[in-house]
Amino acid sequence: MGIVSLLGVVLLLGILCAESKYMVYNTSSGIDAGKINVHLVPHTHGDVGWLKTVDQYYVGSNNSIQGACVQNVLDSILPALLADKNRKFIYVEQAFFQRWWRDQSELIQSIVKKLVSSGQLEFINGGMCMHDEAVTHYIDMIDQTTLGQRFIKEEFGVTPRIGWQIDPFGHSAVQAYLLGAEVGFDSFFFGRIDYQDRIKRKKEKSLEVIWRGSKSLGSSAQIFAGAFPQNYEPPRGFYFEVNDDSPIVQDDIDLFDYNVQDRVNDFVAAAIAQANVTRTNHIMWTMGTDFKYQYALTWFRNMDKLIHYVNKVGFELYSTPSIYTDAKYAMSKSWPLKTDDYFPYADRANAYWTGYFTSRPALKRYVRTMSGYHLAARQLEFFKGRSDSGPNTDSLADALAIAQHHDAVTGTEKQHVANDYAKRLSIGYAEAEKVVASSLACLADSNSFIGCGDSTTNFQQCPLLNITYCPASETDLSDGKKLIVVVYNSLGWKREDVIRFPVVNEDVIVHDSEGRKIESQLVPTVDAYVDLRNYYVRAYLGSNPNAVPKYWLAFTVSVLPLGFSTYIISTSQRTGAGSTKSAIYKFQRDERSAVEVGEGNLKLTFAVPQANLINYINSRNLVKESVEQSFSFYIGYNGSLDKEPQNSGAYIFRPNGTYLIKPEQASLTVIQGPLIHEVHQQINPWIFQTTRLYKEKEHVEVEFIVGPVPIDDGFGKEVVTQITTSLDNSKTFYTDSNGRDFIKRIRDFRTDWDLEVNQPFAGNYYPINLGIYIQDSEKEFSVLVDRSIGGSSIVDGQIELMLHRRLLLDDSRGVAEALNETVCVRDDCRGLAVQGKYYYRIDPLGEGAKWRRSFGQQIYSPLLLAFAEEDGDNWMSSHIPTFSGIDDSYTLPDNIAVITLQELDDGKTLLRLAHLFEIGENSVLSVVTSVELKKLFPGKKIAKVTEVSLSANQEREEMEKKRLVWKVEGSSGENPKVVRGGPLDPKKLVVELAPMEIRTFFIEFDHTSFKRKFDA
Amino acid sequence: MGIVSLLGVVLLLGILCAESKYMVYNTSSGIDAGKINVHLVPHTHGDVGWLKTVDQYYVGSNNSIQGACVQNVLDSILPALLADKNRKFIYVEQAFFQRWWRDQSELIQSIVKKLVSSGQLEFINGGMCMHDEAVTHYIDMIDQTTLGQRFIKEEFGVTPRIGWQIDPFGHSAVQAYLLGAEVGFDSFFFGRIDYQDRIKRKKEKSLEVIWRGSKSLGSSAQIFAGAFPQNYEPPRGFYFEVNDDSPIVQDDIDLFDYNVQDRVNDFVAAAIAQANVTRTNHIMWTMGTDFKYQYALTWFRNMDKLIHYVNKVGFELYSTPSIYTDAKYAMSKSWPLKTDDYFPYADRANAYWTGYFTSRPALKRYVRTMSGYHLAARQLEFFKGRSDSGPNTDSLADALAIAQHHDAVTGTEKQHVANDYAKRLSIGYAEAEKVVASSLACLADSNSFIGCGDSTTNFQQCPLLNITYCPASETDLSDGKKLIVVVYNSLGWKREDVIRFPVVNEDVIVHDSEGRKIESQLVPTVDAYVDLRNYYVRAYLGSNPNAVPKYWLAFTVSVLPLGFSTYIISTSQRTGAGSTKSAIYKFQRDERSAVEVGEGNLKLTFAVPQANLINYINSRNLVKESVEQSFSFYIGYNGSLDKEPQNSGAYIFRPNGTYLIKPEQASLTVIQGPLIHEVHQQINPWIFQTTRLYKEKEHVEVEFIVGPVPIDDGFGKEVVTQITTSLDNSKTFYTDSNGRDFIKRIRDFRTDWDLEVNQPFAGNYYPINLGIYIQDSEKEFSVLVDRSIGGSSIVDGQIELMLHRRLLLDDSRGVAEALNETVCVRDDCRGLAVQGKYYYRIDPLGEGAKWRRSFGQQIYSPLLLAFAEEDGDNWMSSHIPTFSGIDDSYTLPDNIAVITLQELDDGKTLLRLAHLFEIGENSVLSVVTSVELKKLFPGKKIAKVTEVSLSANQEREEMEKKRLVWKVEGSSGENPKVVRGGPLDPKKLVVELAPMEIRTFFIEFDHTSFKRKFDA
Repeated sequence: MGIVSLLGVVLLLGILCAESKYMVYNTSSGIDAGKINVHLVPHTHGDVGWLKTVDQYYVGSNNSIQGACVQNVLDSILPALLADKNRKFIYVEQAFFQRWWRDQSELIQSIVKKLVSSGQLEFINGGMCMHDEAVTHYIDMIDQTTLGQRFIKEEFGVTPRIGWQIDPFGHSAVQAYLLGAEVGFDSFFFGRIDYQDRIKRKKEKSLEVIWRGSKSLGSSAQIFAGAFPQNYEPPRGFYFEVNDDSPIVQDDIDLFDYNVQDRVNDFVAAAIAQANVTRTNHIMWTMGTDFKYQYALTWFRNMDKLIHYVNKVGFELYSTPSIYTDAKYAMSKSWPLKTDDYFPYADRANAYWTGYFTSRPALKRYVRTMSGYHLAARQLEFFKGRSDSGPNTDSLADALAIAQHHDAVTGTEKQHVANDYAKRLSIGYAEAEKVVASSLACLADSNSFIGCGDSTTNFQQCPLLNITYCPASETDLSDGKKLIVVVYNSLGWKREDVIRFPVVNEDVIVHDSEGRKIESQLVPTVDAYVDLRNYYVRAYLGSNPNAVPKYWLAFTVSVLPLGFSTYIISTSQRTGAGSTKSAIYKFQRDERSAVEVGEGNLKLTFAVPQANLINYINSRNLVKESVEQSFSFYIGYNGSLDKEPQNSGAYIFRPNGTYLIKPEQASLTVIQGPLIHEVHQQINPWIFQTTRLYKEKEHVEVEFIVGPVPIDDGFGKEVVTQITTSLDNSKTFYTDSNGRDFIKRIRDFRTDWDLEVNQPFAGNYYPINLGIYIQDSEKEFSVLVDRSIGGSSIVDGQIELMLHRRLLLDDSRGVAEALNETVCVRDDCRGLAVQGKYYYRIDPLGEGAKWRRSFGQQIYSPLLLAFAEEDGDNWMSSHIPTFSGIDDSYTLPDNIAVITLQELDDGKTLLRLAHLFEIGENSVLSVVTSVELKKLFPGKKIAKVTEVSLSANQEREEMEKKRLVWKVEGSSGENPKVVRGGPLDPKKLVVELAPMEIRTFFIEFDHTSFKRKFDA
Repeated sequence: MGIVSLLGVVLLLGILCAESKYMVYNTSSGIDAGKINVHLVPHTHGDVGWLKTVDQYYVGSNNSIQGACVQNVLDSILPALLADKNRKFIYVEQAFFQRWWRDQSELIQSIVKKLVSSGQLEFINGGMCMHDEAVTHYIDMIDQTTLGQRFIKEEFGVTPRIGWQIDPFGHSAVQAYLLGAEVGFDSFFFGRIDYQDRIKRKKEKSLEVIWRGSKSLGSSAQIFAGAFPQNYEPPRGFYFEVNDDSPIVQDDIDLFDYNVQDRVNDFVAAAIAQANVTRTNHIMWTMGTDFKYQYALTWFRNMDKLIHYVNKVGFELYSTPSIYTDAKYAMSKSWPLKTDDYFPYADRANAYWTGYFTSRPALKRYVRTMSGYHLAARQLEFFKGRSDSGPNTDSLADALAIAQHHDAVTGTEKQHVANDYAKRLSIGYAEAEKVVASSLACLADSNSFIGCGDSTTNFQQCPLLNITYCPASETDLSDGKKLIVVVYNSLGWKREDVIRFPVVNEDVIVHDSEGRKIESQLVPTVDAYVDLRNYYVRAYLGSNPNAVPKYWLAFTVSVLPLGFSTYIISTSQRTGAGSTKSAIYKFQRDERSAVEVGEGNLKLTFAVPQANLINYINSRNLVKESVEQSFSFYIGYNGSLDKEPQNSGAYIFRPNGTYLIKPEQASLTVIQGPLIHEVHQQINPWIFQTTRLYKEKEHVEVEFIVGPVPIDDGFGKEVVTQITTSLDNSKTFYTDSNGRDFIKRIRDFRTDWDLEVNQPFAGNYYPINLGIYIQDSEKEFSVLVDRSIGGSSIVDGQIELMLHRRLLLDDSRGVAEALNETVCVRDDCRGLAVQGKYYYRIDPLGEGAKWRRSFGQQIYSPLLLAFAEEDGDNWMSSHIPTFSGIDDSYTLPDNIAVITLQELDDGKTLLRLAHLFEIGENSVLSVVTSVELKKLFPGKKIAKVTEVSLSANQEREEMEKKRLVWKVEGSSGENPKVVRGGPLDPKKLVVELAPMEIRTFFIEFDHTSFKRKFDA
């Protein structure tokens, strides 16, 4: 067997690894206050998927695409660290580390633990991946960070101290304050900021700042943040990977080419250059880059020598960002203040990394859909009780975590890697779907007090509902069979909403759990979706779907917080007793001048000749606004012949002209019924749009199909929609940061420097996860989105969203593929069509936030539909038809959301509560608000509540004690007071949340098994 | 300090290295008689200089040219071997290993020793480099092998068992029998044989043979020799270096892309394919290639898995060539017989690797010159007593060893690497020059019995004598100063020869040590050399030489075996008393029809109108022959537009037409004097030729300057000379193998297969180190060379030598440079001019060998000249003027040479005696001959003589005992009896040598210090 058993050899081997040179290098230098201290930080950066998949990177396969093998890094780093206790290494991406860890013997694991506890090996960042900061949702960021950091805590008992987002393409306020300060990080480092910003900051020595990312939490959530002066690589000439061509330090005088003095001179010159743009006499060299240290000794061998020889004339040491941060902190200096964020990012003129805000919009939507589903599935898993052996939500959590990587949801990965992310999500979903189905079955089954194992109900769900495909609902009920629909609401508020699904029968009737007939509407399915359904079902499932059902059935449901309701669909005996069929009107260009739609307070007017939206009226709040909406596309710039080539591509948005898409068939189809009005527009052969109004809602829902974007003219295209109002927003607009805080944007302007405008479109794009709004002295116009997307206000009064991108050239940032997504059924490939929704609404000034925040939660957490069939008539009597996971008497305050309710693998319950409003955002809701924990867990006795850090890897109290108190330049020295929820009273168990506050708790119950409140 | 001191960590570390996987792979498989056994031989091949210099390869610098770092290989192999005792590795090139070894601590050294003694790490080949086999001299091959193998013996106590010449470009008979069997190797493996040969051998399963390289030594020096079926790399798809793109074995079922079955299938398919061309059920996979195993674990990780999984269906094991050889031997099969050699090598049609036989002719000459000098210097070092602290001959030995590498003396390295070899030789020479000078001073100084430390004579030598540059002799003697010339003869025979050096005085007179005036001749220096001298002295020494002396002084010297004589040059008081000035005649085209030159038995006739040699007459042996001599060049083929491109280049000779060089100035200058006649011909502006006859010699000496070869026409050129006789040699000619055995060559024919001729010139070229000859029923026509060179007999009666090559295209074998040598003085660069000599003679059939062998030794070991100045008149009285290192009464037999006389660093003396004749080569000299050892060491008492293997790393008797006795197909089973010298009688100490035998001895003396025979 492959194990050396001779103790002698083992003993010798230890020293072999420890002492591999006859020359002994002095690497023990500490900090010298009087000199420039160069902190050498040995690091590797592992993209959790990019050119290769995460597994390919880990095992080192597919090297023809990119030579990279994380296994090599982790294997080789250990002997290198053991050989010299002064050597250090930081490791970041837990998705890789966990793959490695589970392959290691206990002995190796114990060695690694020693290296971690000694500080030689330090975990930095600690999430599963180095998530993107533009197109990620804060809940996903928290979840993936928690997943990685809790693993570190459990295995090693340590808490990463440093945020290390060296590669993401711009940096968000939420990252700084929420995933930084609130995670307990002492500092936060990154590599990419705007090139103009960088120049100014280098000149002013303001690369390192105190960053207050949140207006609401201010100095209570600030962090020391450092942008690197160049990138996250070593200075030129100090790359020491196997086969790298930097000059090695050749100090063997018996050989030719001895070069110690040259190398020392190079080192000192590079150090002085960096010291000249850095405050204090501490500078950091990031000694590593993507996937380096495959044979770690090559780096340490050279760094050992540099430290040894440079120290004879200077000043350098093996370090980590923690040591560096402590050294900076020890200087007791004041630092410049930074607010807002570092978006958009341009690495040079005409190279704005704002394309990726939209790249791969279908993947972005899949990630967002799964994110909301994951939240709901975890709630249901909690109610049923977690199964460690599965099915459980772990694989979906893993897949989602990986998908947050800055080359995943960003759309900047190769196509095969994008497929890999989707596959992982799909596998994770399939397992979570089982958890959801069995939990609902368990909760609904009135016999479930004997346990859930024998629940017989097999709930079906419909992940492809967006393309009008739902086999579970497309069942023929004409023989008396009934369709049971269980509707789960993962929000903490009672909720009324219209749900829809396709049905094959025309004479269906809907009853609620009390046996009451519910008003329902049959909305005709649309031709434009027939092709989507047929093609994509074949592409994704490999089988042909049944004939397209003629109708969507829509009706209003009402569901309790964290609960479900049950509805029964059957065919009606009497004609006309069932659903109302929608009326259908087709308007051709010449028929009449305008048509108004809307059954409730909100009405829209379309001009028929132009087939255009022209007017918006809310009769309740008297908002009236002329609104137009149009589609355009940008031509992707082809810079291949330029002196400084820069194409538009997966990362970079560089338009070459805007082209308005004039509707080719200027016709409107209007669908009207008691619940829903719709206006269908075939804008051109590859854009179809539905404008939808709900009787009970005061926003417009726009559903679009864009694609396949034609490329037969040889041009890549980036498709946008513009919604134009008359609001005078004076160049100002607001976009959210990771779905949370809204940040003020001013067109052609940056707060931190005098912007030189070279890309008036691309340079004004910002990421949108929740929404974008503009306002003037009277109104605010808000648009909310169903996924991350790029957008702007390029013209006053107008909001622009980029919906899809199909490009034919690579933009030279490494992915080496054009962003030209196709979908294939065998050899028949088409450009990817994207289906999605956005929502807009115009409010009187000051009233928009309420809708943005509460409806934003609904978009993120749509009602979850589960279907079952029943032959008999006794569902309601044999099942529990309605349920709420919280106390019947309770609902969460309107400004609070449960963003995590999860049973952890150690049996504890993880609860996160989020205040949804910023200070000043809403006169009523932007206040400190209380939540009664006891009401959240009816039927359970809370034994202990521990408030923990955001990522749940340390007690909050400990974290606050350790927090470094940085001084801000120009301030009195005292940090301004900020409102925060007070400490939790262990008896009352009432949690206070101040605006934008998120509080995280471990909750332990008296009984390990869940006791249903109905049994209490 | 960089040493971990915690025992605990060390302990853990050992196991870390040993057990780096939770999965444990079974790598312990042995041989299975019933199955195909795949011997996986993990190996790396380190070129001791090629694209980078040896030191750059070792430390891993200059990686922009080639990613390669031998230090990484040796560092990383140790933990990999320690981790699994079944893993094995072979290491070859000691030039690299020694660099690494001296950097290691004693502890590491002790670990390596354990790995070696356990067989996990096995030294193969064991020379300093993997020497070339075409253009190397057998003495250099022996020396470099001895240097490496004795190091291995001293440090590890082991003797390499296997010849491993996997990369050289064809394989020589001398390698097989001398550097193989006589070194004690059990087998010999190589990668490159002619593509046509390979096809046939694969079909006939005759890649593995018993090779008898020597006609004379026959089965007594045969070896099991295996050519690989493809190259020395793994089968396609089994490359596992860091970043290699072969599919790794992915056996982690928790990750995507599990591929064990695919990889096992690939493995089995490749194994079966190889088994189908191999005898027995053992096949070898060479798992590695150039500079691989930089991170050894990447290979072993995958091989572990292959062994583990394939063994579940098959048959494979970690192995070494030794284990493989033993397995083959154990099968007791008979093997095909192979004689002669494997030259020339073509890797495909039109790709004959016969260009490198001549590439870099100046470097080749430098190496050969240094080789002869090294032999002499070691003798003188022995006489004086070796100094371990130097100066000694070690650095020259090292430089020479490295220069034998198959990308060194071959000329197939990049220019900067060629420069590096030359630099090393130059440094080594400079030190050896000191050894020579001080030894001569010591021996000549009559007071030296008190030790040599205070010898005051400062002997100067003239390494640039070939370009008429010798500052030591160019001293003005007109003021009565005297020039002392000490002439050392490193041959074992007394020797009379004409020496020459430039002098500035016209009226010089030469006296021998007895005070007798010696006849001397002043030969005018030649204009063609003025430019050479001036340019190259500036290029090489950086300084301007003095004015060119007008004369060479030539006179005949007589020197004892391994001894010296002293001559004194002074100016003559009387006019005419000194040297005879040569008469000079210039013949223009129209003057007369012919001119005859030659003062002795040999006379040549030149036709004046054509300025051509036309006739050769030896009046002693009555040989008369019409002889013509001409120059031509081939145009180097430019295949860049061909479907299968193949240029002529450093490796490959691919001519595109032959062009005769017609003398432009058809003039002859004839120089005549009492000792020497010369005919000077300026063939064209860039070829100058001197045809030289010595009164006392019966051969023609031709001295040429070729270059700078013009390239302004855009064509590369390969310059040849042809000497044409009327001999009817019937396509047959003979060339030497590494300066030793002559091998019969037949034009357009191969012994081993039916040759398909596609390159009638290049495909008939063979390497020449000593000489080439043709014969018919009456005469033999022999040409001897001063360096390795390519040549052939393309036309019956004619011998062709390639003298220089200047090419403008690379030939796609990796060097990626055109062979376009230039020499620069600052920014003024010119094509390299080559100066050299060859010698020819026509003998009656059967009488040529005597001259070829004995004069060949003189070419290899020219008389060594050392100069001193003396103001006074008492040199002879205050010095010992003549010396012989052997007994005054003794001389070596005419057929025996001392090829090594060296004091080793352990105080022993290494003596090698070589029989110079093959069986049947000469009726008198091709016989068993005796040498009296006692006579070789006058004044010393031999305490012990131990016969050892050729490379002096084991006792000969032990070696013979271990020798494997292979069976040859079709023979009776008994190997034919061969004549060998008998065992050494320890009392008589008379050594018998049979034809072609070389015997090697350790000699130990009673006294450690050398006692001069004069003092005895």
